[in-house]
Amino acid sequence: MKATRFFIGTLKEAPADAEIVSHKLMVRAGMIRRVAGGIYNYLPVGLRSIRKVEAIVREEMNRAGAIELLMPSVQPAELWQESGRWEQYGPELLRFKDRKQSDFVMGPTHEEVITDIARNQIKSYRQLPVNFYQVQTKFRDEIRPRFGVMRGREFIMKDAYSFDKDVDGLKVSYQKMYDAYTRIFTRLGLEFRAVAADNGSIGGSGSHEFHVIAETGEDDIAYCPTSDFAANVEAADALPLIAQRGAATEPLVKTATPGAAKCEQVAELLGIPLERTVKSIVLATENGEGAEPTIWLLLLRGDHDLNEIKAGKLEGLGNFRFATEAEIVEWFGTPPGYLGPIGTKKPVKVIADSTVANMSDFVVGANEVDFHTTGVNWGRDLPEPVVADIRNVKKGDPSPDGKGVLDICRGIEVGHVFQLGTKYSDAMSANFLGENGKPQPMQMGCYGIGVTRILGAAIEQNFDEKGIIWPESIAPFEVVVCPMGLDRSELVREHAERVYDELVKAGVDVILDDRGERPGVMFADWELIGVPHRLVIGERGLKEGKIEYQGRRDTEATLLAAEEAAQVVAQKIRAALAR
Amino acid sequence: MKATRFFIGTLKEAPADAEIVSHKLMVRAGMIRRVAGGIYNYLPVGLRSIRKVEAIVREEMNRAGAIELLMPSVQPAELWQESGRWEQYGPELLRFKDRKQSDFVMGPTHEEVITDIARNQIKSYRQLPVNFYQVQTKFRDEIRPRFGVMRGREFIMKDAYSFDKDVDGLKVSYQKMYDAYTRIFTRLGLEFRAVAADNGSIGGSGSHEFHVIAETGEDDIAYCPTSDFAANVEAADALPLIAQRGAATEPLVKTATPGAAKCEQVAELLGIPLERTVKSIVLATENGEGAEPTIWLLLLRGDHDLNEIKAGKLEGLGNFRFATEAEIVEWFGTPPGYLGPIGTKKPVKVIADSTVANMSDFVVGANEVDFHTTGVNWGRDLPEPVVADIRNVKKGDPSPDGKGVLDICRGIEVGHVFQLGTKYSDAMSANFLGENGKPQPMQMGCYGIGVTRILGAAIEQNFDEKGIIWPESIAPFEVVVCPMGLDRSELVREHAERVYDELVKAGVDVILDDRGERPGVMFADWELIGVPHRLVIGERGLKEGKIEYQGRRDTEATLLAAEEAAQVVAQKIRAALAR
Repeated sequence: MKATRFFIGTLKEAPADAEIVSHKLMVRAGMIRRVAGGIYNYLPVGLRSIRKVEAIVREEMNRAGAIELLMPSVQPAELWQESGRWEQYGPELLRFKDRKQSDFVMGPTHEEVITDIARNQIKSYRQLPVNFYQVQTKFRDEIRPRFGVMRGREFIMKDAYSFDKDVDGLKVSYQKMYDAYTRIFTRLGLEFRAVAADNGSIGGSGSHEFHVIAETGEDDIAYCPTSDFAANVEAADALPLIAQRGAATEPLVKTATPGAAKCEQVAELLGIPLERTVKSIVLATENGEGAEPTIWLLLLRGDHDLNEIKAGKLEGLGNFRFATEAEIVEWFGTPPGYLGPIGTKKPVKVIADSTVANMSDFVVGANEVDFHTTGVNWGRDLPEPVVADIRNVKKGDPSPDGKGVLDICRGIEVGHVFQLGTKYSDAMSANFLGENGKPQPMQMGCYGIGVTRILGAAIEQNFDEKGIIWPESIAPFEVVVCPMGLDRSELVREHAERVYDELVKAGVDVILDDRGERPGVMFADWELIGVPHRLVIGERGLKEGKIEYQGRRDTEATLLAAEEAAQVVAQKIRAALAR
Repeated sequence: MKATRFFIGTLKEAPADAEIVSHKLMVRAGMIRRVAGGIYNYLPVGLRSIRKVEAIVREEMNRAGAIELLMPSVQPAELWQESGRWEQYGPELLRFKDRKQSDFVMGPTHEEVITDIARNQIKSYRQLPVNFYQVQTKFRDEIRPRFGVMRGREFIMKDAYSFDKDVDGLKVSYQKMYDAYTRIFTRLGLEFRAVAADNGSIGGSGSHEFHVIAETGEDDIAYCPTSDFAANVEAADALPLIAQRGAATEPLVKTATPGAAKCEQVAELLGIPLERTVKSIVLATENGEGAEPTIWLLLLRGDHDLNEIKAGKLEGLGNFRFATEAEIVEWFGTPPGYLGPIGTKKPVKVIADSTVANMSDFVVGANEVDFHTTGVNWGRDLPEPVVADIRNVKKGDPSPDGKGVLDICRGIEVGHVFQLGTKYSDAMSANFLGENGKPQPMQMGCYGIGVTRILGAAIEQNFDEKGIIWPESIAPFEVVVCPMGLDRSELVREHAERVYDELVKAGVDVILDDRGERPGVMFADWELIGVPHRLVIGERGLKEGKIEYQGRRDTEATLLAAEEAAQVVAQKIRAALAR
């Protein structure tokens, strides 16, 4: 490509509504332009990167045996009514009427349409397994679209849907997609982690998110640097930090802790480690109209946080809410701040986090304002508690796989693989005739990749003060050739054209900047756009047989023999793409 | 591709709502499935053909210097209000509100969005010309979606928009697109014509439609088999069929023609050729409230039809309507059926078609029921008329380019190139600074290709009782390898795999039917799907060193040397694609 036949729309300033670096840089690099909130034009530079992401995604989906098709954006409400999501889905689902007043939606996802295809096309176990995918434009009417392509309303996704005859088949299909996603993000040249997202209703880990690691990510990820383990902090198992409970050594003492309502204050006041304190969290569950609620006391070590998702999965706590202050006063005889399991006014159900359950000589609230109880021990002072994992993991915790210690990082979700099971096939009667001749619901999986989001995530991970730093695989161009004084020097023109032609022949995606701009303008544009390799062709260098090369992350240029420059760069790019 | 790793969804029966052959065959071949009226899933077979069309379109657009970008489906109403189309566009424009009650449309076309891009990105004449294009999903809320992909609601289009600094530049950009479209439809392997669509407001032919020739087409096209001339029948210039007016030889005679209200009846009754008769058409134009209208009498030869578009372009006739019967009686003294230019009751403005103007001794109504006047001659019996081309061309007419005789065929519009001029740049202030330093509106052109519609058009042109007959360029597969008894014969399996591998290596898009179906099922499926080449590999043939080849249009198979079969077929395909 020659720059004069292309469109470069770089800007000096980022728009006022751009809050994060990827949004700012994508606008400044001329990749996207806002049309309305969360709706963008993809300008030529941006579209080139999108197409490269799509191409890698398609190659790996095809390699994994998935079959491409294309479903519509506009979907009839009937299908969503059948699945139940017409009611369940919030206002992110854009609903509208056509000219005949029939209800439609703009598809935010395609489970309903693909399930409709499957129930019509797949009749027999002989047609299974099958995995259909598409690369398609979706719409989610976000309440607050922001961050450019990271949380847009109209965006491009790859979504795949697998159909299997049984759960074992689903697990095989799921693993294929998991592996394909691993190859995709590896080839994209991104630092990423596959993160267990929950423990699934089907058994095993039914869902993984693929996160690009970036400090600006929205999600906290717990991972083990010395093993493969990674999970959303909320989904990671927290092991007990005390292997075995120690014997009681202190007497039970009610101690004045004036004004110390928080564990940190208590620890400081008493001169003990925070890890000796236990915090009390009070939940309530309803027992029907007129009946009084059940009150639950959850005990966590002072430095730990409640994981509400884990709590909600415990027996009896499915629909918990936090207790009101009035309930706390009624059950504990005191307002929040100095609560504890000993001497409550009315009976409460106590659940101890698995770490708390192994503590001894610990400190809890005394159910009296400005007092705590020290030297508390299970069995001696309190009945043995119900024990459960109800906390978030922390940096330094043992990895649940036993292979090291957890660290925490932030990530941007760019992919998701999910075992749906029979949720949609049951709701929409997507059955097949099994080998036994009986109709059975298909086992479904769904697998998404946010194509446009990947661009934003890649930038959040790879940028500097000059602009974007693209991995070769998704750079709008792999190399830019910048001739110095193209219109003045025949020598420069000749070599620029030669190097350009050689790169094209070598299959390199090269742009020749033949705009005749000053070097400063050229360099600034291509650094902002983030082209990973640059060749500068100037008369002075050529007279010494040299062409200047600079990688986008290099702090200084190096000189290459003019005749070999194209091949050297082509080789660098091939090596990078071979990831 | 191997069939067992692909999805084939052929059907024995076409759906009840399929009226035309392409719709029936696309459903039966498993290319499309209906989701709602005019909204389809593109199943894997269909998507492969779509992608091939898109690839050819992109190659030729890029070659012509157009630059790809991507605009959104969902567009804010503000842009449409600026252009004026928010009011002008009918209910085909799907309008809806988002969750914040802002107005949006689903883009049926993108003039507004691209003009918005241009006015923001293009500041100087130095940035012109530029041509942006996209391949994108559009939505038109058709009142009666039908004919499958031919008149769908959601469909894929390639749309391009050129921006120039002056009309001369626009004409150059237009010609480039015209040439690119010619290459595109040639490469697609379709019989097509570029058809002048109107005479444009900019001068020259401002618009051409590209039609795929098919008997089932919706449009009548006049074309000259011995030259390049082609135009929509309504837009084609009709030359006078009589070069010079003959002298008057007959007297003016009022003749009884009882019951002969139509020219055909008059000609039969009087025993004269229809070409001697002249029909009268009465139009009216208003002169403001209270004033009586102007009445116009348009004269056409008995075998010709009025072209209302041409009439509407004549001075004074811009807002014509047909006269009422009461007006006719008032001005002519008689009800319709026997009208003529001689002896009207009140004055009328006479316009003669250019053929009528050169007639002599002709027959017209006598303005009296059951009477005509024969031997009518201009000058002698009537003042010289205003002369204009107001008729549709007919088969056998001279071609307006003087290079032959017109024929009429039917066509399906699949592309349109259009000189917009400054319609949108004026309305939306898309100005640039000219060389003189002054702001000027950009000259725009727009250029559309109906990607999904092309599939339907190609089928309407190429099918037989067995199914579709694809041109190689857009066939879902170029060749199918059908092994006979794959599971029984090791010899067959070996050769099938070898031939398949050779074809893949030769760059041929081949599918190996390894499903283990019976020959009849295999053949019927691939004939229905329309794969243009077939190799049948059976034990009997192999024992004689032969593989059976049959082209989709061939009535009989031919035998190829088993070792050469792949190369022979690859060569046939290369030759076809080299169009």
